[in-house]
Amino acid sequence: MRILDQTKLPAEIDFIEATTTERVWEAIRALRVRGAPAIGIAAAMGVAQAAGQAVERGASSEGVLAALASAADTLSTSRPTAVNLFWALDRMRRVGRENASLSAAALAERLVREAQAIRDEDAAMCRAIGEHGATLLKDGAVVLTHCNAGGLATAEFGTALAPVYVAAEQGKRVSVYADETRPLLQGARLTAWELMHAGVEVTLICDNMAAQVMKEGRVDVVFVGADRIAANGDAANKIGTYGVALLARAHQIPFYVLAPTSTFDARTPTGDGITIEQRAAEEITEGFGRRTAPVGVKVYSPAFDVTPAPLISGIICEKGIFPAAEAVTAVN
Amino acid sequence: MRILDQTKLPAEIDFIEATTTERVWEAIRALRVRGAPAIGIAAAMGVAQAAGQAVERGASSEGVLAALASAADTLSTSRPTAVNLFWALDRMRRVGRENASLSAAALAERLVREAQAIRDEDAAMCRAIGEHGATLLKDGAVVLTHCNAGGLATAEFGTALAPVYVAAEQGKRVSVYADETRPLLQGARLTAWELMHAGVEVTLICDNMAAQVMKEGRVDVVFVGADRIAANGDAANKIGTYGVALLARAHQIPFYVLAPTSTFDARTPTGDGITIEQRAAEEITEGFGRRTAPVGVKVYSPAFDVTPAPLISGIICEKGIFPAAEAVTAVN
Repeated sequence: MRILDQTKLPAEIDFIEATTTERVWEAIRALRVRGAPAIGIAAAMGVAQAAGQAVERGASSEGVLAALASAADTLSTSRPTAVNLFWALDRMRRVGRENASLSAAALAERLVREAQAIRDEDAAMCRAIGEHGATLLKDGAVVLTHCNAGGLATAEFGTALAPVYVAAEQGKRVSVYADETRPLLQGARLTAWELMHAGVEVTLICDNMAAQVMKEGRVDVVFVGADRIAANGDAANKIGTYGVALLARAHQIPFYVLAPTSTFDARTPTGDGITIEQRAAEEITEGFGRRTAPVGVKVYSPAFDVTPAPLISGIICEKGIFPAAEAVTAVN
Repeated sequence: MRILDQTKLPAEIDFIEATTTERVWEAIRALRVRGAPAIGIAAAMGVAQAAGQAVERGASSEGVLAALASAADTLSTSRPTAVNLFWALDRMRRVGRENASLSAAALAERLVREAQAIRDEDAAMCRAIGEHGATLLKDGAVVLTHCNAGGLATAEFGTALAPVYVAAEQGKRVSVYADETRPLLQGARLTAWELMHAGVEVTLICDNMAAQVMKEGRVDVVFVGADRIAANGDAANKIGTYGVALLARAHQIPFYVLAPTSTFDARTPTGDGITIEQRAAEEITEGFGRRTAPVGVKVYSPAFDVTPAPLISGIICEKGIFPAAEAVTAVN
C-alpha cells in the first residue's frame, strides 16, 4: 500500500510505503491518511494486504482468517471516533467468515476485491452526495466549510466539498471560505490546496474569523463532513464544527452535514454516546516548526465535537437530503 | 525608550531601543507593543521623547511644539482601530498647546510628566477595573478570555485579566481558559505566559474549542478587553471576540467587556463606524515558522470585529460595572 502523507501537504507531495499493518496503523493514527471515509478505505486495504501477505507466507485459509482478524483488531485501535473505520473492518471480517471455505489464495483475492469495492462505492457515494448537495447551490453561491471533507478525505470528490465540485462541473460559479482548522490546519493545508488545484475560488480564514465573515453577509451556506452521526441526527465532526453551527444559526445561514450512510451509527442513540478523542498538547503548542506557547502550559485538546441535530438544517447522504433527526432511520 | 518585544514571547525576552519616532511607529505597527492602553502609553512616551530630542538639538518652544506635532502625526498612522492611540496623542497635543508659553526645556519636561501620568493613570485604572470585576468571581471561578488584555497590554494588571489577579490577591482560587487567538497567537504566547508567571492556573485551547469547552460546562464567565467602545456600547476587540460572545450567549454564560474609559468613543455612535484593520496574509499562511497554506492562496484577515452591545452582559471600567448600552454616556 502506498499512502499520500497528508501531514506534509501543501509543502510536499510524499507517499509512504505502508507495507505492514503497523505502518497502516501509524498512518491512520498520525493523520497521514484522514477523513472518515478514507480511514475506512485504508483500513480495509490494510486488512486485505495482511491477508495477501499471509498467502505469500504459505498460510492456509485458517491462517488467512487469523491474519485478517489480527490486522482488523490492530487497526481498530488506531482512532476512536470515525465509525467508518469500524464499519469497514466489520465488513472485511464478515466477508472473511462468509468465504471461509475458499482456498487461501481465493479468500485473499476476495478480500482485496472487497476493499476495492469499499473504495469504489465511496467514490460513487461522493458523486451522489455532490449531486444532491449541488441542488442547494445557485450560480455565485458562497460556501463556508470547516476542516477537510474533500477529495483528500475520501475516494474521490469528498463529502462536504462534493457539491462544490459537481456545481463547478455544471458550470456554476461557486466559491468557498475555508476555516484553517486548528490545531492541524487541515483547512489551510488540504481544503485550500485541493480547491486551488481544482480551479475553485477559495479564501482562507482563521477559525475565529468565521463569525465576522458571516456577519458581513459573505456566506450563503455551511457544508461540513461528519465522522459519525448518531441515530437522532447528532453529528460528530472535527473540533470547531459545533461552534460554526452555532454561528450559522445566529446568522440564519443554513448548516448542512454531508456524509455517506457508512457514517450513520444507528446503534448510538445520541451524540452523548460518541467517544471524543483527546489529542496531544504538542499539536497546539509546537505544531508547525516552532514553539508558540510557554513550556509546560496546560492544554485541553478535544479532536471532535458533536453538533446537536436541531442545529443541522439537513443531512446530505448518497440517498438524498434528509431532516437531521430523520436521516439515520430513513435510510435503514 | 525601551520596549519589550512581545512578538518574541514566550521564547525570548528581548527589549528594543525605540530611540526614534520611526522606531516607536514600527514597534506599534508590528505589534511589538500591543493592547490598546499600552499602545496609548507608548505613543505618548514617543511624543515626549521627540520633544526632549528637539530640546537636545537646541530647539525653541516652537521647535518643541513642531516636533510634538510631527511625532504625533506620524504615530497616529501606526494602527487604525485602538482609540487610546488617538486619545493619548490628542492629550499630548493639548498639553503642548496649553504650555506653549513655557521654555523649551520646561515644555519638554511637562510632556514627559504627561506621558508618565498617562501610564500611572492606566495602572490605577487597571486596579480599579480588577476590583470591580473581582466581585463577579466566586472562589473556584473559571474565566474564559480571548487574545491578551492582561498586564502585557497595559501599564499593570491589564483589563480583562485584572479581576483574575485581584481575585487571586484576595485568596480566591480562579482559573482561566485562554483562546490561543489566531493568527498572532497572543493568547498562547502572552496570556498563557503572563498567567503562568503570576501563578494563576491557565489552560490553553484553540479558538475553535471554546464552544465545546462551554458546552461541557467548564466556563463561568467570559472576560475580554476592547480596543474601542462606541457610544451605544458596541465593542471592537481582537478578531474572534464577536464569535465568542455569540457562543457565550448560546450557552447562557455571562460575557463582559473590560476596558478603561479612555477606550470609550462617544463620538462614534455605533460599532458600524469603527474602522476594521485588515492584516497581511502572511500572518495566517506563515505565522508558525513555516508555511502552512498553499502559495498564492487568497486570504481574508480582519484584525478586529465588533460585538454588538446586546451580546454584552456588562462593561467594566475603572468607574464600575455598567449595562453595555449605558456605559459610555454614564461616565461622560
